[in-house]
Amino acid sequence: MKTMPDPAAALLATIGQRVDLIDTPAAVVDLDAMERNIQRMADFARKHQVRWRPHAKMHKCAELALRLQQAGAGGACVQKVSEAEALAAGGVTDIYISNEVIAPAKLLRVARLARQLAGLGGRLAIAVDSLEGIARLAEAMDAAGPDGAGIDVFVEIDVGQGRCGVPPGGAAVPLAQAVGGHARLRFAGLHAYHGRAQHLRGTAERRDAVAAAVEAARATRDAIQAAGLPVPLVTGAGTGTLVHEAASGVYGELQAGSFLFMDADYAANEREPAQPAFEHALFIKTQVISSCGTHAVCDAGHKSHAIDSGLPQVAFLPPERALRYANGGDEHGLLFADSPRARLPAIGRMLWLVPGHCDPTVNLHGHLVGVRGGLAHGVVERILRVDARGAVT
Amino acid sequence: MKTMPDPAAALLATIGQRVDLIDTPAAVVDLDAMERNIQRMADFARKHQVRWRPHAKMHKCAELALRLQQAGAGGACVQKVSEAEALAAGGVTDIYISNEVIAPAKLLRVARLARQLAGLGGRLAIAVDSLEGIARLAEAMDAAGPDGAGIDVFVEIDVGQGRCGVPPGGAAVPLAQAVGGHARLRFAGLHAYHGRAQHLRGTAERRDAVAAAVEAARATRDAIQAAGLPVPLVTGAGTGTLVHEAASGVYGELQAGSFLFMDADYAANEREPAQPAFEHALFIKTQVISSCGTHAVCDAGHKSHAIDSGLPQVAFLPPERALRYANGGDEHGLLFADSPRARLPAIGRMLWLVPGHCDPTVNLHGHLVGVRGGLAHGVVERILRVDARGAVT
Repeated sequence: MKTMPDPAAALLATIGQRVDLIDTPAAVVDLDAMERNIQRMADFARKHQVRWRPHAKMHKCAELALRLQQAGAGGACVQKVSEAEALAAGGVTDIYISNEVIAPAKLLRVARLARQLAGLGGRLAIAVDSLEGIARLAEAMDAAGPDGAGIDVFVEIDVGQGRCGVPPGGAAVPLAQAVGGHARLRFAGLHAYHGRAQHLRGTAERRDAVAAAVEAARATRDAIQAAGLPVPLVTGAGTGTLVHEAASGVYGELQAGSFLFMDADYAANEREPAQPAFEHALFIKTQVISSCGTHAVCDAGHKSHAIDSGLPQVAFLPPERALRYANGGDEHGLLFADSPRARLPAIGRMLWLVPGHCDPTVNLHGHLVGVRGGLAHGVVERILRVDARGAVT
Repeated sequence: MKTMPDPAAALLATIGQRVDLIDTPAAVVDLDAMERNIQRMADFARKHQVRWRPHAKMHKCAELALRLQQAGAGGACVQKVSEAEALAAGGVTDIYISNEVIAPAKLLRVARLARQLAGLGGRLAIAVDSLEGIARLAEAMDAAGPDGAGIDVFVEIDVGQGRCGVPPGGAAVPLAQAVGGHARLRFAGLHAYHGRAQHLRGTAERRDAVAAAVEAARATRDAIQAAGLPVPLVTGAGTGTLVHEAASGVYGELQAGSFLFMDADYAANEREPAQPAFEHALFIKTQVISSCGTHAVCDAGHKSHAIDSGLPQVAFLPPERALRYANGGDEHGLLFADSPRARLPAIGRMLWLVPGHCDPTVNLHGHLVGVRGGLAHGVVERILRVDARGAVT
């Protein structure tokens, strides 16, 4: 892995520095915990004989996508064309844009990227959910000329997410056929991701939601195969439900990405016994900058961590000395000591936060500081550049 | 003003391009509306004979800070040291870090920046709210050596925000005295910002909240002056309440920043008659990428706009054809046509969103696309780089 000697990174932390000297607020990765999570996921996928293609929209680092491939992952998922371009620039050659792309100018970039990755022995895949989208994609792929590449195309079905995708069953058949009708498009299978199921708190709720998704995917697959088209793969699943998709016999590939860092929201799920014991590996290091009698104030607000899935939690404190983080706006967090034995932290004190949601939290940072040897006494081993930060197009 | 020919900006939009060709999602500034907002604010400040130092934590662009100074603003506020450094690199020389800074390494950067700006004929100011903070700041300023610069120091008092700051009244006196006791620190006055009051919806509520803040600031000023120290300035106010601080006779400087772009949250306030009629000038351009029978899906989610102050609103549609934006996650928005005459937009349709909160929305983008001639038929005039994007330290 490479280290990044750029000026912004150097202000944040330097290689070999002790953890307590990392500037705040900073997004810090416990590399030991992250690598244990990778090993758990690799073991899980091997045991269940299922492919895994972790979603890079979570970590947005080419270096981490490559690290996951070393551990057995079959490429990376991304959500946006600009994310795919950023990962490709960092050396990732097997990328699936698990989302619909409609704009002609962006589809020309997709076609260029498909050709670039094919030239490197890799491949690009994309999702579609409309005849319009397929026609536009085919036009852009054809515009690349006679030496253009092909692209793998997944038809997205809505298995309960209520967002993109055609209804399961017969509606997917004409889309699969339309894909199959273009020389540059290869029908690669079904995209069947149930995002809402990831955050259902109870194990039974998640199991039931995914059971319905599995049946929907199976019925759709059967309908397409009955029309004479093979369905090579059903892809989907996230960190909250991957146990069920892996055991389904229908899903052949898991897209879970959050397992790498784990966030407070996923940790709030009741844990499925078969689920690997993923640990928190991403933290926000923050520092107390003000303290009055009633509360203290730290320097991490919602420009340092996303709050769409709840506020962060203060980590590594024993329950009787817990601090409660309350919203202090863009740049501040308020800390309250609710229990009788808890004490407000003094000015200058360093604290660690577990973000509510990793994906949009990572997107706020230019770099992630990778620490080896634990967050209490470890040292900075590498600084990961967030290659696709802000890559929303 | 300069235009930025960098590759990421060029993919988003090119100078002279028609609005409909700007890639999506994109943060787009209606330059005409923005300039009308600047003129309104300049007129207001002149009429009330009050200084204004707009908060650059909102727009994060050196180019815009300089544009505001051309219109009469007296420098820029920022919230973080790295923001100050980013603006200084872009040519801004009069900067107030309206926040507490505690880390010794960061205070050394403050001292360096103070010296740099003083060398350019500018100045740096900072807020404090503890003796510890003052001692650390003084130590860093002294460490800069005999040819180091001075720094203006504001004592922050809590006038109702409930975040940083000492209580109003006597508690601020020893802090002002401590500042006055260091050769490199100049006591510049009081920082008295009431953030919570900005978002109280009713005009009477906001008026009453600021009336209490004004009395608190006045009492504190009088206590410090009674101790023999002049209080050169009381600084504070935001876009929601600036009418009241401007008329107070106590506040000499307004920090309001959001007036420049206006967001959905500020627009939801009941409007004070004396308030200038600020317009929305920041929009997220988005495109429909999927559409089923019940809803459409656009390509802007909460990686494109912050949702801490509510979801964005779909702009420029007549009421009977209004679309409701619902949260679709990091990268998607769900669009519902609730009224009988409304129609779901087709795949490829462009829409404009007004973000709930400008500050953290701008922070998600590397560039803002500046359009001249209106969003319906205008052209791209310039691409503003968000110099301090992600500058949280």
